[in-house]
Amino acid sequence: MSSVKDVAQLAGVAVGTVSRVINNSGAVKPATRKKVEEAIRALQYVPNEVARNFKMQKSKTVALLLPSIWHPFFSELAYYIEDELDLGSFKLMLCNSGGRPEKEMYYLDMLQQNKVAGIVGITYNDIEDMVRTDIPIVSIDRHFSKRITCVTSDNYEGGRLALRELVKAGARKPAFIGSRTQLFSETMNRRDGFVDEAESLGIDCVVYEKPDPVTDDEAYYDELFHKHRDIDGVFAITDMFAAKYIEKAKGLGIRVPEDVRVIGYDGIQDHAYFHPVLSTIRQPVEEMARMTIRLLFDKIEGKEISQDTYRLPVTFRPGETT
Amino acid sequence: MSSVKDVAQLAGVAVGTVSRVINNSGAVKPATRKKVEEAIRALQYVPNEVARNFKMQKSKTVALLLPSIWHPFFSELAYYIEDELDLGSFKLMLCNSGGRPEKEMYYLDMLQQNKVAGIVGITYNDIEDMVRTDIPIVSIDRHFSKRITCVTSDNYEGGRLALRELVKAGARKPAFIGSRTQLFSETMNRRDGFVDEAESLGIDCVVYEKPDPVTDDEAYYDELFHKHRDIDGVFAITDMFAAKYIEKAKGLGIRVPEDVRVIGYDGIQDHAYFHPVLSTIRQPVEEMARMTIRLLFDKIEGKEISQDTYRLPVTFRPGETT
Repeated sequence: MSSVKDVAQLAGVAVGTVSRVINNSGAVKPATRKKVEEAIRALQYVPNEVARNFKMQKSKTVALLLPSIWHPFFSELAYYIEDELDLGSFKLMLCNSGGRPEKEMYYLDMLQQNKVAGIVGITYNDIEDMVRTDIPIVSIDRHFSKRITCVTSDNYEGGRLALRELVKAGARKPAFIGSRTQLFSETMNRRDGFVDEAESLGIDCVVYEKPDPVTDDEAYYDELFHKHRDIDGVFAITDMFAAKYIEKAKGLGIRVPEDVRVIGYDGIQDHAYFHPVLSTIRQPVEEMARMTIRLLFDKIEGKEISQDTYRLPVTFRPGETT
Repeated sequence: MSSVKDVAQLAGVAVGTVSRVINNSGAVKPATRKKVEEAIRALQYVPNEVARNFKMQKSKTVALLLPSIWHPFFSELAYYIEDELDLGSFKLMLCNSGGRPEKEMYYLDMLQQNKVAGIVGITYNDIEDMVRTDIPIVSIDRHFSKRITCVTSDNYEGGRLALRELVKAGARKPAFIGSRTQLFSETMNRRDGFVDEAESLGIDCVVYEKPDPVTDDEAYYDELFHKHRDIDGVFAITDMFAAKYIEKAKGLGIRVPEDVRVIGYDGIQDHAYFHPVLSTIRQPVEEMARMTIRLLFDKIEGKEISQDTYRLPVTFRPGETT
């Protein structure tokens, strides 16, 4: 009985090349492939089925990249992602990237080696140049290129909605407060929707932004209160920004919602036991998670994806701060 | 060059048996092993290194079983578990068991097949009978047997500490409120420490418990307020129980901490932006997570573990409710 070495010797190629031909993996020149196939026939070589199955075995694991699982928004997202993966008999591998590119790279490398079937998640690195075009990746909140499908909430409409709700609650000088990442993120559309809606309604609004991440909360809010004493409405880019604003405002004797109405974004509070219960633009976290995984499954199966970016509708969830 | 089939034929065994001998995996009778080894020598058989490496490749993945990642205590735990695994170049596979035994079984099965190197986490099933004695498992909060090492916080001391802090804050009729799982959990020691400390100080205390999970919050708290009108201190088995108590009490005009002092257990609030900031017995989550993984690594390496249960010290974290 001949071995893979016999085949390699007869074809005049390395054992690895024979393996690539057998498993249909990796690049092999057509002429080389022909030589290997002829040697296989000549020697009546039967590939070791065990080894072959190992090679061919498709991974049933999907990697989830998150800045940190220790955050209510991300843990809710991970919860539903795991649930949807489980429905398809896939397992979830969790990576807290902490924004470290080298940690994310490790998973991309696993993807290239077929150790994971696909990657989903939120990355703050410019991974676009690192990935092959046909790799199954679905990004949340960041659109890289046509090659990487993006799922996000309708941030622009969320911004417009926040502006209208602040005005409805009595605000005449509303402000957007947030931070800006270096790379474009879909979340920046929250500001644009807010500003555009203010303009179309003829309302004077303030935009207050600092580079992301904001490391000095004290300085951030001090400058905001110092520069913009006259604002009477705040739309914060996240619920956490809103909660911090309210706490700082309280220290200065500013009452919420009497003096300033506040709306956040995310909807991280899933019960009403801690206060204030924020008025917020609620992301459809479950739908985002399930759609992300369904699109990933489509990609793994080689199906065509019709859109680059899927923007899911948001809702206003009234709380105690408007 | 001989193949594994030649070896099997000569030894008069199945191919799978040869594979088990080569890879030192699974049970093979000594006599059978000897026959296979003789055949290997006779045929000067060299195992296919590629296939062998696949087989021998130790999994570098650890499964984490949790009832749900969408909970601040579990997501903090998962965060540090992933971090400690990463230090050892291990990957984390996440399973929200939702208390479903069949989902947990799947991971135990993967462990038996060497697809994961070990399992850690919180399970509400009686997994003891399902596992081989030498499988690397570290359980959090539940002690099964000598075979499964358990890491937990010092629940008993936490209960004692809570009683003393309530008394220090002025309570004369303190109550423990919680729920009881069917299987013993280390968390039940919270009550015992509380009750024992009350007894040793000669203080009259109340114990209010219902079967876990409590599905009807309304009925649970209604009965508590109805039966125990005179309590002026509450130690709740978790922060969530404490938060719900406070909200219900507020609805009845009971002020916290003026009328009733309240202490929770966990320390799920990692910032002071939502109120009340609970006075609580803080679990050393990071230390618990890192110790769990270090013990698991010891087990994977076949080292002896000196203790059955590791109880890590807790601290009282004062908040706005005492």
